[in-house]
Amino acid sequence: MFILSEQELKIKSLLQQLKKQAGSHSPSIWQLTEHLNNIKITIDACFLSNPYATDLFEEYLQKDLISSGKLREILEYYPSQNAAIARKLSPYLNVEADRIFIGNGASEIIQALLHHFVKKRMAVILPTFSPYYEYAREDVHVFFHYLKKENEFKLNVPLLFKELEQWQCDTLVLINPNNPDGSYLSQATLRTIFEQGKQLEQIIVDESFIHFAYEDDKKSIPSCISLCHEFNNLIIVKSMSKDFGIAGIRAGYGIMHSEKVKTLLKNGYLWNSCGLAEYFFNLLSNSNFLDKYEALRLRYISEMKLFYKLLEQIPEIKVYPSKANFYLIELLGDIPAEDLALALLIRNGIYVRLAKDKIGLRGEFIRIASRRYEENRQICEAISKIFY
Amino acid sequence: MFILSEQELKIKSLLQQLKKQAGSHSPSIWQLTEHLNNIKITIDACFLSNPYATDLFEEYLQKDLISSGKLREILEYYPSQNAAIARKLSPYLNVEADRIFIGNGASEIIQALLHHFVKKRMAVILPTFSPYYEYAREDVHVFFHYLKKENEFKLNVPLLFKELEQWQCDTLVLINPNNPDGSYLSQATLRTIFEQGKQLEQIIVDESFIHFAYEDDKKSIPSCISLCHEFNNLIIVKSMSKDFGIAGIRAGYGIMHSEKVKTLLKNGYLWNSCGLAEYFFNLLSNSNFLDKYEALRLRYISEMKLFYKLLEQIPEIKVYPSKANFYLIELLGDIPAEDLALALLIRNGIYVRLAKDKIGLRGEFIRIASRRYEENRQICEAISKIFY
Repeated sequence: MFILSEQELKIKSLLQQLKKQAGSHSPSIWQLTEHLNNIKITIDACFLSNPYATDLFEEYLQKDLISSGKLREILEYYPSQNAAIARKLSPYLNVEADRIFIGNGASEIIQALLHHFVKKRMAVILPTFSPYYEYAREDVHVFFHYLKKENEFKLNVPLLFKELEQWQCDTLVLINPNNPDGSYLSQATLRTIFEQGKQLEQIIVDESFIHFAYEDDKKSIPSCISLCHEFNNLIIVKSMSKDFGIAGIRAGYGIMHSEKVKTLLKNGYLWNSCGLAEYFFNLLSNSNFLDKYEALRLRYISEMKLFYKLLEQIPEIKVYPSKANFYLIELLGDIPAEDLALALLIRNGIYVRLAKDKIGLRGEFIRIASRRYEENRQICEAISKIFY
Repeated sequence: MFILSEQELKIKSLLQQLKKQAGSHSPSIWQLTEHLNNIKITIDACFLSNPYATDLFEEYLQKDLISSGKLREILEYYPSQNAAIARKLSPYLNVEADRIFIGNGASEIIQALLHHFVKKRMAVILPTFSPYYEYAREDVHVFFHYLKKENEFKLNVPLLFKELEQWQCDTLVLINPNNPDGSYLSQATLRTIFEQGKQLEQIIVDESFIHFAYEDDKKSIPSCISLCHEFNNLIIVKSMSKDFGIAGIRAGYGIMHSEKVKTLLKNGYLWNSCGLAEYFFNLLSNSNFLDKYEALRLRYISEMKLFYKLLEQIPEIKVYPSKANFYLIELLGDIPAEDLALALLIRNGIYVRLAKDKIGLRGEFIRIASRRYEENRQICEAISKIFY
């Protein structure tokens, strides 16, 4: 039987305090290790990033900056301005530079879009990444369209548009694949949405997890970037933290109509990339780096799929289908998700995302990021052990 | 006689293009080295930072992150949230954590203040750091109070308040010491201003250069932070780029009433520090680091003073008194400031700040940052050589 020890209950209350301070997000690894000093996190399956890509970035950084002694310049000099970095990113994205807005992580871009472009009424699909409603201006009304677990979080497009019309929204936000469930909108479905949504001021598509999704055998990245010319109201938001494994350097971009980029740059956002972010953006013009990244992306995707199969074999949980690098897991028995997450952390050093604060989720859920194969195997073993 | 060669004139036009793209700021060193590949910048006297402090930060980073192998975690993990970093900074600043707002460089803080708190009418002292008027919302009227070179850019407080009343401003911005001239408001003068300005919604004091100013023999830092409790409308803005020599990691803080911090955090700014910025903020709790920093700050200040004496000996220029780590220099002869800056760059690899785009400055001005003593000496030698 599964019972938390007294010591574990003490840690539970400490964790609840940290969580309270962190609002609708998880405390950082730094916060956890500072405040829970007898717990060592060995597997971070809470934050969502490809560890193989971090290896690659670290390898380049070691060679280009550390061995060469150039790191000092990265620390000392002012980075280039937003538009200068956008010009360098333009060939990689195959989009005109004046349509690219560089962000200090996707969260800054979300904030900028919500503050400057949403007019009065915005529709968000639940469950979601909370900044999409938390950062809304006070004078904006946010409407929620609910995905249902009974439908495996699949979007019902006609129903959504019925609601949009009823609500008279000016803005629609989609995350594809969606966070925290991993549900995916195909390119064909998105085209239907864009066609039907032409009268909206903007459709924001957050593609932060798109590098893990695919529709063909070659696993090509099914991004909507190329549709930006056809649909003037389309805005793409992209974090670089997940696919490139570099959450700590804060890098992201948005793609939108050039008038929107102009508006944002008139309002600031001038030196919002740090030196390491500028170095990273420069790497995206380096074909050797990109070739190596592509191989690691494919490897990671295949291990994500194996992880799904391992998780499916645990009878006490339901794993929802996902095209992102994480799985939303529902606990079918009596153990509360919070206690499972706690036991994984204390007994195994595995940090997972408790989904308790995700509005629109009914039930006991945790979200687990896919890591290296061996780590994924350990996660499954640890979960099984707790149940038996 | 001073004449630019044909080759130099070509570079001049290239530089003018880069400058045009950079707006009212200077192109980054990265942009210059990319586009002017036959010019090697050996002394950066354009951007404003203490190189000894960069040495110190580099030393700690080498030991704490690179030798220990911890750099990877800084790249991979999400940094802590704004409020978590503020809590750590609280003892160093001797201010309650809920009054501290962490920024991605001072420029993000300026943007946040101007967008969220300025009501309708704002007064800015000219010449100034341009984001203070460039980032103003479209519905805000910015009024300019002019400092005069004839008065060595000294502020006339009664005149300023006469104008403030006439303009019915809700916000006053002061930079102390001021950028780009280095003029300084004593603590006594500031207290007078704060007393008289109690009815204003806010007085923003940018102390980004305060570590280079002093009033006593011990060269104590004359910050206004301790006055924040007495004057509720006081807001302090602080870049860490200059004093700590780390422009590339983007770190700054603002100190303001806790209600204002709450308002900002409700609007985003959640993960706006990169991992290296969080590491740097942690260093401010390390007394060994702070002791070493203090010694280097004093050394740098004494070399700044020597630099002033060297510059004063050049008869063709007027150096304005400054308590910041730079000197505003007026050219008294026939050589345009642009050509002097160009010659320094091409012939000597010395990058200085052409002040042509600083509104409110009449005449031919350049701003030169103080570097290490030997570099300062080379700058003076190079300027003298151009004149003879």
